[in-house]
Amino acid sequence: MERGEWKKSLRGKPCAACKQQRKKCEEDCVFAPYFPAESQQRFAMLHHVYGTSNVGNILKELDVSQREEAMKTLAYQAEARVRDPVHGCMGFIYNLEEKLEKRKMDVQRAKLELAKYISPEKISELMQNEAQHNQP
Amino acid sequence: MERGEWKKSLRGKPCAACKQQRKKCEEDCVFAPYFPAESQQRFAMLHHVYGTSNVGNILKELDVSQREEAMKTLAYQAEARVRDPVHGCMGFIYNLEEKLEKRKMDVQRAKLELAKYISPEKISELMQNEAQHNQP
Repeated sequence: MERGEWKKSLRGKPCAACKQQRKKCEEDCVFAPYFPAESQQRFAMLHHVYGTSNVGNILKELDVSQREEAMKTLAYQAEARVRDPVHGCMGFIYNLEEKLEKRKMDVQRAKLELAKYISPEKISELMQNEAQHNQP
Repeated sequence: MERGEWKKSLRGKPCAACKQQRKKCEEDCVFAPYFPAESQQRFAMLHHVYGTSNVGNILKELDVSQREEAMKTLAYQAEARVRDPVHGCMGFIYNLEEKLEKRKMDVQRAKLELAKYISPEKISELMQNEAQHNQP
């Protein structure tokens, strides 16, 4: 959100974090640029999982240029935790790891089959980005 | 941690969460089974990212059988957020998604090459678990 837009929203209503805390939304509010009044539901999840003061601490520790991305990832994680209180977004990670493992097996199977028809060098050439995958 | 072990650790020292809050660790402490005295460093990260009371709320909302797994995923996420305050464990997700995309391209390339030598039916047979991957 641009500074101008934020001021506009401020004139109307307090940001979602200040509304949650029932306090006045000051001009230098750290939450206001990322949680306009309309984002109350999204902020409620962040408040439930992290607590407003912890979200504020995370914001203050970051450079202004990094805050928007950090709030996006935090909101995504909070939503995942509300949806799946046991695994949170680790559920996605487990799922992706499993898919990746299956794809690796597919590539392996295809390579074995290809080895019947083409040379190992040609296979390596085909899978150009192989080295990148094995990087940690 | 088994109930017996927990009691043993309780006799010696308060759990990491009670130590953090400088309070007495009672017998029915919700944190004690998951955060023994030795896990202070691990708990400090959870406290920093989520706050002790929020971790306590998450624990209390869950069935006892789900708590250990929930604390494992929460600790993993907290560690990821401390290491990467902007992306947290979303960094792993982006990385895995990118790897999966590359693997998909590898499979696609291998299929195209294989199509020169074997029938589409044989390729499908080879990639047996294809259907599973495309499930949401």
